[in-house]
Amino acid sequence: MTLSDLTHRTSEWLRGVGPMHDVVISSRVRLARNLAGMPFLRKCTAQQQQEIADRLRTEILSANLAEGVFHVDVAAAGPLDRALLAERHLISRQHADAKHPRGVAVSGDETFAVMINEEDHVRMQVLRSGMQMRDAFEQINAVDDRLEERVDFAYSNRYGYLTACPTNVGTGLRVSVMLHLPALRLTGELDKAVHAARDMRLAIRGLYGEGTDASGDFFQISNQITLGRAEEDIVEEFLTQIVPEILNYERKAREALLKHNSVEIDDKVFRALALLRSARRLASDEMMALLSLLRLGINLQRIDEVDLKTVNELFLIGQPAHVQKMHALRRGLEGPTAAMPPEERDEIRAEVLRQRLGGT
Amino acid sequence: MTLSDLTHRTSEWLRGVGPMHDVVISSRVRLARNLAGMPFLRKCTAQQQQEIADRLRTEILSANLAEGVFHVDVAAAGPLDRALLAERHLISRQHADAKHPRGVAVSGDETFAVMINEEDHVRMQVLRSGMQMRDAFEQINAVDDRLEERVDFAYSNRYGYLTACPTNVGTGLRVSVMLHLPALRLTGELDKAVHAARDMRLAIRGLYGEGTDASGDFFQISNQITLGRAEEDIVEEFLTQIVPEILNYERKAREALLKHNSVEIDDKVFRALALLRSARRLASDEMMALLSLLRLGINLQRIDEVDLKTVNELFLIGQPAHVQKMHALRRGLEGPTAAMPPEERDEIRAEVLRQRLGGT
Repeated sequence: MTLSDLTHRTSEWLRGVGPMHDVVISSRVRLARNLAGMPFLRKCTAQQQQEIADRLRTEILSANLAEGVFHVDVAAAGPLDRALLAERHLISRQHADAKHPRGVAVSGDETFAVMINEEDHVRMQVLRSGMQMRDAFEQINAVDDRLEERVDFAYSNRYGYLTACPTNVGTGLRVSVMLHLPALRLTGELDKAVHAARDMRLAIRGLYGEGTDASGDFFQISNQITLGRAEEDIVEEFLTQIVPEILNYERKAREALLKHNSVEIDDKVFRALALLRSARRLASDEMMALLSLLRLGINLQRIDEVDLKTVNELFLIGQPAHVQKMHALRRGLEGPTAAMPPEERDEIRAEVLRQRLGGT
Repeated sequence: MTLSDLTHRTSEWLRGVGPMHDVVISSRVRLARNLAGMPFLRKCTAQQQQEIADRLRTEILSANLAEGVFHVDVAAAGPLDRALLAERHLISRQHADAKHPRGVAVSGDETFAVMINEEDHVRMQVLRSGMQMRDAFEQINAVDDRLEERVDFAYSNRYGYLTACPTNVGTGLRVSVMLHLPALRLTGELDKAVHAARDMRLAIRGLYGEGTDASGDFFQISNQITLGRAEEDIVEEFLTQIVPEILNYERKAREALLKHNSVEIDDKVFRALALLRSARRLASDEMMALLSLLRLGINLQRIDEVDLKTVNELFLIGQPAHVQKMHALRRGLEGPTAAMPPEERDEIRAEVLRQRLGGT
């Protein structure tokens, strides 16, 4: 498996299925771990960083964690490949942009990835389509157990797992969901959901995690507290209280739109589909806004000629690095390529969208 | 022939043919005349105004001026019918909105119309598709001669025909063309054309004549001077110097766009067609802007699935009074109807456009 193979494939979490998939794009569970007997990453010497990267790579690849696990040396990868991994949510933007020895191991279906030498020595995540938090949690526990058979993680009987940032100490667990809340934005009630989430001590972020704005209609909501709580409690609260509440707001807003503004909604969603099928230039921001409306139109059963899986895929493959990588691959160019001028990328993006959506 | 019949018909001047039809929508020739021995309209008593209206109506209808001439008593018509006549360029906005006795006689093919009791007692016009100024001039001369066999027009050997406004004294002739100049707007060179026209002492106005802005991409250009010049000279100068010069600017701008910005042009014109085919609400201004781009796309041979005649028709039947009248007729409602809320009109307009353009 290579990065080039990934470019054309759809991650499991984009299938547009799973419980509550009308609002919940994906569920993510992440564990932070550090090797016992080694300093936290930012205290390491360059040599120690390399040792950690090498050791973890070897252990992970021989641990048989999942089907088709492959490793990418992120430090050696070109900027386009690093951006591609970040767009697929397999590594963080910070991990993509760092300079030190680091890597990522990814399962063949991309449900599971382990970042090596991110903020912590090990950051493993499971990413699943729709609301599949319990499944994700079971999967990551299995991975964690398998790894712990091979390496010792830094652990304190008093605090739990030790992590570079105090907010992760304890379980090292972060659970998050990616939500699509277009109706709350259209009805001007987004603040209500944002405040509710903050009241529940949750973090709200944009599509690409920490440091990104909650731009457009996509919101990543995650727990803030990991210390002093059992992992199961965190997951259960998320599952049974937090997500259902926000989901309920969004569904109510959708019902209200359909009831009182159906012509306005149809106007927006059919225009969006028409533009996606006909534009000759499409910037990333505009694409996201139009796909968001299209996704709403499908979920409200106003549009039936496009399915959710296609829309979810387009969100991914319309991202800048994906557009450029696909274009390079079509022309038989492997390996690092020069950055493409945005106008050219906008043209290729528009072409990809027209093709996938049966445009003219 | 009734106004309701008109609603569904296409005027001759909208056929989208005729010389230079890529830029020249229509050519118009107008003559201003007043009855000898009667005061100008604004000096008339109400009784005199009624006498003039009655007499001219009788004379025009019995003069056999053209096929299928019919008369509309504008003073007795409802606001919707008056607006409809103005949208079809058969009467001026001022004539539609006035209060005194007045009317209009229209030929069956709408190439020709005589307003009775506009600013002058008689304002006759010939309106033809594309650049057909000479034909229009011949046609209006024939009409003028035929009328003068029956009525005496106020005439001075020194000044020529006498008119209510000094700018019309002499020949009483005004020639104008409706131009479509989208490329000059897109390339930011519109000022060049406007200044050139003003240098040649021409008036530039919007789609509905005096008092309307030159909004969007449509410009009506007309001569300003009628006194001391032969009618033929005015027409010839218009034909051989003025229109070709502006036409040349626009065609050069189109060539430049195709050469240097073909993707941008395609993006604009295909988006415009897509929106016209998919919108569920369409305000009049947006429709005009989108149809203008569509018309450009057809003339640049980027779009071949829609013809110019259809686009020209849509410019007309998408106007507010037409939308409302067609809607009323479909529901079997004749006669005056209450004004429709704009949102409702925008929905019907969008529906008409989708139907005519094969939208979804």
